[in-house]
Amino acid sequence: MNERQIIEYIAALSGQDTTAGLIRGIGDDCAVIDKDGHHVWLLTMDTLIEGVHFDGGLHPPDKLGRKAVSVNVSDIGAMGGRPLFVLLSLGMPAGFDESWFRAFAKGLADGCREYGCLLIGGDTVASPQGFTCTLTVIGEAEAQRVVYRSGARPGDTIWVSGPLGGAAAGLELLRRGIDGHDDFAAFREQHLNPTARVELGRRLAAGGLVHAMMDLSDGLATDLAHLCKQSGVGARIAAKDLPCREALATAARLTGSDWRQWVIGGGEDYELLFTADPVQGSSLLALGDCCGLRLAQVGAVVEGAGVTLVGQRSDGSSEEVAIAYQGYDHFRDKPGG
Amino acid sequence: MNERQIIEYIAALSGQDTTAGLIRGIGDDCAVIDKDGHHVWLLTMDTLIEGVHFDGGLHPPDKLGRKAVSVNVSDIGAMGGRPLFVLLSLGMPAGFDESWFRAFAKGLADGCREYGCLLIGGDTVASPQGFTCTLTVIGEAEAQRVVYRSGARPGDTIWVSGPLGGAAAGLELLRRGIDGHDDFAAFREQHLNPTARVELGRRLAAGGLVHAMMDLSDGLATDLAHLCKQSGVGARIAAKDLPCREALATAARLTGSDWRQWVIGGGEDYELLFTADPVQGSSLLALGDCCGLRLAQVGAVVEGAGVTLVGQRSDGSSEEVAIAYQGYDHFRDKPGG
Repeated sequence: MNERQIIEYIAALSGQDTTAGLIRGIGDDCAVIDKDGHHVWLLTMDTLIEGVHFDGGLHPPDKLGRKAVSVNVSDIGAMGGRPLFVLLSLGMPAGFDESWFRAFAKGLADGCREYGCLLIGGDTVASPQGFTCTLTVIGEAEAQRVVYRSGARPGDTIWVSGPLGGAAAGLELLRRGIDGHDDFAAFREQHLNPTARVELGRRLAAGGLVHAMMDLSDGLATDLAHLCKQSGVGARIAAKDLPCREALATAARLTGSDWRQWVIGGGEDYELLFTADPVQGSSLLALGDCCGLRLAQVGAVVEGAGVTLVGQRSDGSSEEVAIAYQGYDHFRDKPGG
Repeated sequence: MNERQIIEYIAALSGQDTTAGLIRGIGDDCAVIDKDGHHVWLLTMDTLIEGVHFDGGLHPPDKLGRKAVSVNVSDIGAMGGRPLFVLLSLGMPAGFDESWFRAFAKGLADGCREYGCLLIGGDTVASPQGFTCTLTVIGEAEAQRVVYRSGARPGDTIWVSGPLGGAAAGLELLRRGIDGHDDFAAFREQHLNPTARVELGRRLAAGGLVHAMMDLSDGLATDLAHLCKQSGVGARIAAKDLPCREALATAARLTGSDWRQWVIGGGEDYELLFTADPVQGSSLLALGDCCGLRLAQVGAVVEGAGVTLVGQRSDGSSEEVAIAYQGYDHFRDKPGG
C-alpha cells in the first residue's frame, strides 16, 4: 500500500455522516465542520518525525519548532482560513537534551505568535527512537469563502505562489555540507524554516479570486494530481513557466541531482497552488505584490484527468509527459527523500 | 525535566489570551473553546507509541485501534462532553504488515462508531522505528455543565468509577505469559482494550452531581495530585476503600509485583475520578448502577495540598503516607513501566 491507498482505506471505513455538522471530511487540506451556520472550523494535523522529516543533527531546534507550526497553518491558509488554536503532542527520548527542547519550544511558541494562534493543549510522551511531534491546528473561515481542492473548472488557469524545488535543494545541500552561493542559504532556509502563505490564502479566498486551492507539501506533481482528482479535471503544465531560483541548476549540478525533478516532485515548498478564472490574472498578480510574493501562472485546467507536463525536446519539438503523483510518497520513497 | 515540568515549561511560553474564544487551555483533560455562547468544543490529543504504550508483539491490532479511540474519548467524557470528531495521525514503518494495518484501522473505525464519533481527517507518515498513532478528538458540551479538574472543594467526597490497578496487572501478566484465572482475562483486557466511561461522565455532568472530574490515565496518585493542585486543595485517601478485583493480589504474587503500587500508581485504568458534595452519595451510587458501574467512595478533599494515603500498619496503628505524583511519568519511569 502506498500513502494514498492507506488514506483511501481509512476513509472508506469512516462514515461521512454530516448530521453532526461535518461539512468536509478526509480528502482536503483540512476537515471542515460547521461553527454557527455562517462560520466553519478548519481542522488539520501534521506530524514531524526525526529521521523522516528532519535530521536531528542538521536541523536547529528553534527552526524545527517554527516549522512544525508553519506546515500545519499552511493547510489552514490553503483553504482561506485563519489559524486560531494549536494542540501539540510531543514524543521525546528519555534523557533528551533540555537546551534542545527549550529552543524547540521557543521556536514553536514564536511561530504560534507569528501566525496569530494559541497553543491550548496536547500530550507529552516518551519516544524511544527519537523526537516526534504532531500538531493539530484549528482555524476559522467564513463558510461561503472556504476554498476546496474540488473547485477547479476546465479553462481555469493554474498558479503557484513562488519558486519551486527550493526545499528539496536545501535538504540536499545541507546533507552534503555545500555552501558558497547566496541562493543556497535561501534553499536551506526553505527546508529548515519554511513560511506558510496564510495571509495570501486568506486574501485570495476573501476576494473570491480562486476556484480551488491547496498547499504544496508533497510536490507539484502529486499535489496537483490530488486537486485534479477532487475536481474531476485534468491539468496541463508548461515546463518553461515553472518558477525556480536561478541557482537551482547550480545546486543540482553540485549535488548530482536533477533540478527538474526537484521542481515537479521536490515537496515541502509550502507555496500555494490554486486555480482561477483566466480573467483574474492581473488581480492575482496585484494581490501577490501586496503580499510581497511573485505569483506565477504555470498551466491550465482541462477536461479529463491526470497531470501533463508540456516541455520541449533538445531538437525543439514539443514533448508531453504524464507526471501525476510523481512527488513524495512516505511508503514508496526512501525516508528523507 | 519530568513530564510535568515539560508541560509547565510549554504552558508558560504559550499565551492564554481568551479573546479568540479560549475558555480553558493547557492543564485539564481537554482544552475548552467557545462554540456559540451556550455550547463549547472540548479538544484532546493522545499518542500511542510502540514500545512505550504497547508491545507490538502482544497487542492485537484491532484492540489497539479501539484503545487509541478509548483513551482519547475518555478525556472528553471526563469533562462531561460528547465525542464528535476524530483526527488521526498514523506513523508506520516502511514495509508494514498490511493485514495488521487493516485490523488496526477496523478496530479504530469500530471504536469511533461505538463512541458515536466520526473520523474526519489526519496525516499518514513513515515512522522508521515502529508504529505511532496520535488522535485528536473534538467533543461538545453545554458550557454550563463542563466539569473541570479545578472544582474540588474541601469537604467533598472523592470517588472512582471502578476497580483500580487492573491495567497494570494485565500488562505484567501479558509480558510473562501468565494465565489461569478468570479475572486475569479481565486484567489483560483492561490493558489491551479499555472502555472509556463517556456515558457516565456525561450523566454525572448533566446531573450537576460532581464538582471536579478527570480520567485515571497516569494512576490515582498522580492524577489526584493534578486535580488537587488545580483545585488548590489536598486529599486524604483511605487505603481500605480503594476498589480492586480480588485476583489482583494473586496476579501480583505470581509476577513478583506489589498490588498496592498497581492500585495507587498503575495508570491506564481509564476509570473516572471525581469529587462531589457528600449529600450526593446515594444519587451517585444509583447513577453508577444505571451505567452498570459500581462507583466507590475512596476519600475526602481537605484544605491544604498534597495527597495522603491513610492505611494501617500490621500492629493495627494508623499510617499516613504522602503519595502525590507516584504514578507513571514518561521521563522518570522506564518505558512500558
